[in-house]
Amino acid sequence: MTKPLRIGIAGLGTVGVGTLEVLSAHAETFASRVPRPLTVKAVAARDQARDRGVDLDGYEWFDNAVDMASGDHVDIVVELIGGSDGIAKELTEVALANGKHVVTANKALIAIHGTALAMAAEEAGVTLAYEAAVAGGIPIIKALREGLVANRIDRLYGILNGTCNYILTEMEQSGRNFLDVLDEAQSLGYAEADPSFDIDGIDAAHKLAILASVAFGTAVDFDGIHVEGIRHISPIDIEFACELGYGIKLLGVAARTAGGYEQRVHPCMVLESAPINHVSGVFNGIAVDGNFVDTTIYEGRGAGAGPTASAVVADILDIARGNPVPVFGIPARNLKPAQTVDMGRHRGAYYVRLTVVDKPGVFADIATILRDHEVSMESVLQRGRAPGEPVSVVMTLHESLEADVVNTLDAMASLDTVIEAPCMIRVETFA
Amino acid sequence: MTKPLRIGIAGLGTVGVGTLEVLSAHAETFASRVPRPLTVKAVAARDQARDRGVDLDGYEWFDNAVDMASGDHVDIVVELIGGSDGIAKELTEVALANGKHVVTANKALIAIHGTALAMAAEEAGVTLAYEAAVAGGIPIIKALREGLVANRIDRLYGILNGTCNYILTEMEQSGRNFLDVLDEAQSLGYAEADPSFDIDGIDAAHKLAILASVAFGTAVDFDGIHVEGIRHISPIDIEFACELGYGIKLLGVAARTAGGYEQRVHPCMVLESAPINHVSGVFNGIAVDGNFVDTTIYEGRGAGAGPTASAVVADILDIARGNPVPVFGIPARNLKPAQTVDMGRHRGAYYVRLTVVDKPGVFADIATILRDHEVSMESVLQRGRAPGEPVSVVMTLHESLEADVVNTLDAMASLDTVIEAPCMIRVETFA
Repeated sequence: MTKPLRIGIAGLGTVGVGTLEVLSAHAETFASRVPRPLTVKAVAARDQARDRGVDLDGYEWFDNAVDMASGDHVDIVVELIGGSDGIAKELTEVALANGKHVVTANKALIAIHGTALAMAAEEAGVTLAYEAAVAGGIPIIKALREGLVANRIDRLYGILNGTCNYILTEMEQSGRNFLDVLDEAQSLGYAEADPSFDIDGIDAAHKLAILASVAFGTAVDFDGIHVEGIRHISPIDIEFACELGYGIKLLGVAARTAGGYEQRVHPCMVLESAPINHVSGVFNGIAVDGNFVDTTIYEGRGAGAGPTASAVVADILDIARGNPVPVFGIPARNLKPAQTVDMGRHRGAYYVRLTVVDKPGVFADIATILRDHEVSMESVLQRGRAPGEPVSVVMTLHESLEADVVNTLDAMASLDTVIEAPCMIRVETFA
Repeated sequence: MTKPLRIGIAGLGTVGVGTLEVLSAHAETFASRVPRPLTVKAVAARDQARDRGVDLDGYEWFDNAVDMASGDHVDIVVELIGGSDGIAKELTEVALANGKHVVTANKALIAIHGTALAMAAEEAGVTLAYEAAVAGGIPIIKALREGLVANRIDRLYGILNGTCNYILTEMEQSGRNFLDVLDEAQSLGYAEADPSFDIDGIDAAHKLAILASVAFGTAVDFDGIHVEGIRHISPIDIEFACELGYGIKLLGVAARTAGGYEQRVHPCMVLESAPINHVSGVFNGIAVDGNFVDTTIYEGRGAGAGPTASAVVADILDIARGNPVPVFGIPARNLKPAQTVDMGRHRGAYYVRLTVVDKPGVFADIATILRDHEVSMESVLQRGRAPGEPVSVVMTLHESLEADVVNTLDAMASLDTVIEAPCMIRVETFA
């Protein structure tokens, strides 16, 4: 009988407790699947007195997770504390330096320090596994790193934040405004009390940084990502989108282009019929374009104790079997710089909504600005209101350089007849 | 430098040539991803003279693939010959017995001889890999066996045959009948000259047998699968389905029930809004329900040189890395008997279409038969035609035992007023 693999769990929130439950619920099956027995040896959290609804008596307790990772207490440290720095980072560094495998659900940590941590893991000859950090219910890291390994990945895009997708889905279905639906999402527990990480796109960007690294073999580049959230999406844009045959989704997009890698998180108009548009509510969905497989799509729950713990345990079993795959698919020292392309150099189609005073000559001014910036209009809609009231003018623009579009909108914004900041949403034409 | 991993490819059809192309296109990337260099050493096919559009000069040639698998020519045999028996089976057995890894795209071989071959592989300490056998573009075997390993899989269902899905999609969109669309599919190369493997559900059943085994840890049980194809689906059923809010798909379904495992391939009515209903044309889609992840969905191309070769090469790279996972996730000797439940014991909802003579009393007879068999109707539609002509009566039945439904339909068929064999399609209410 080989020695058991000793697991230490740091952080006993819902995912930590969920991981204990998954390991115990299917212990017998796991024993038949891996050559080494798994045993939870230790747990670490701040407050030992708190009732977590689970019996912790059999485990060695650590108030300080870093102590658990030092010495010879465990073989795998499961980091479920969260946060890109502080204790989570220290714990991970100490664990790797002490020759312990690390399994983490911490997207911020990997998105910001992933390359350095991967190098530390590979130098120490241990695994740093993070399937749970991106779309827990979907084994997308394994799919990209192993299942689709034969392909050059040219693009991936996805709905990476369930909170935003829930809010946009609800706005579309009920016609309510953003703040109303956010409020509801908070009361249902789908959004945090401080929702900015989700609704400003940061959480999605963390996940995109990780996916792009695995897909392209590039160093993780969170700072290079262009990030916009969904605060500015209004019911009127959702209505116009619908009229034009589109839905609005917050997408993370990573694409290989002639000029380098694009990495961007922002609301997108996507064709009503596109598979990604059918991913609703709190679900996540990721599409991957490989040069040999064409497009493959993955959908599932992105958060919650069950899906996240499922991914954590899959990583633990991979370690128990000894699946020797580098952290990002290729050795971390060989990851190329991401050289993320500036958003101004993005080429794409655009939706623009202007609020204008309804008087003669407005349209001529707008058309002149478009012509002067060599940006070409594909279609235009004008929604009439009561006489004398401001009017919404909606345009879609043919594929253009983003820098040109930004200049065009700046010029339009400076017209006296344009009375609100123009609203711009990028249009993506995924098949 | 470790010794190169010597690959021998048996079968040089489109997938064999595609595999050579993938291996050569990304040779440099692969070298950075695995610790052993890969080298194609030998190829085997019947006709050396045939022009395959690819340079074969650098490889040792074998007219007989079994000779390539004997002796010390290669370390991995890639079996792309096809067929459940004959040369493909002999080649695989000889390769395993000689301590060579086998990578195969052969669903029939694995569906019928998978358990025995897995035992042979595990005894010899080599890998038998078959990602390419099921939905090539989707790494579903890896997802089930590794990515979702923490879950008890309660059900999986999917569109496993692109030919059938293309035909049903075209029938729905154009209103044309089955034979018309089959004819078109044949001329487009989406259906074989002898299409029965596809349209009678056998190909889908091969794949379902493999998926069920990996999902449930049961021995492969192709013979236990209830298989129906799509020949009997008529435009009128597609029309009625649409009116009732359903689409018609050929699905493979494997489910854990109180009485045992259901394994079945047949046309299903699925809710128009269900994600699986949005998988159109030649695409495959598979939904997996795990007890911790809930439902996860995978979509992509199921066939073709690129997607299939992508899966073959992913398996080769797994072997080169030394990912030591048992063939079906648990050691083959521990696979439980499948104990597939008889279809008569299936409980579900049903769509039934009767063609009746339009005269008084018909409905009373039908209602009496339903009552006598304790089968309860959920809704009924009658489509009027010209006076005196036969009438279509469409019913949906509440959840019932299939044996009762079959008896009910037999009794209805024996009525003088029912002038065609009743058409029955199962209704699945996937969320």
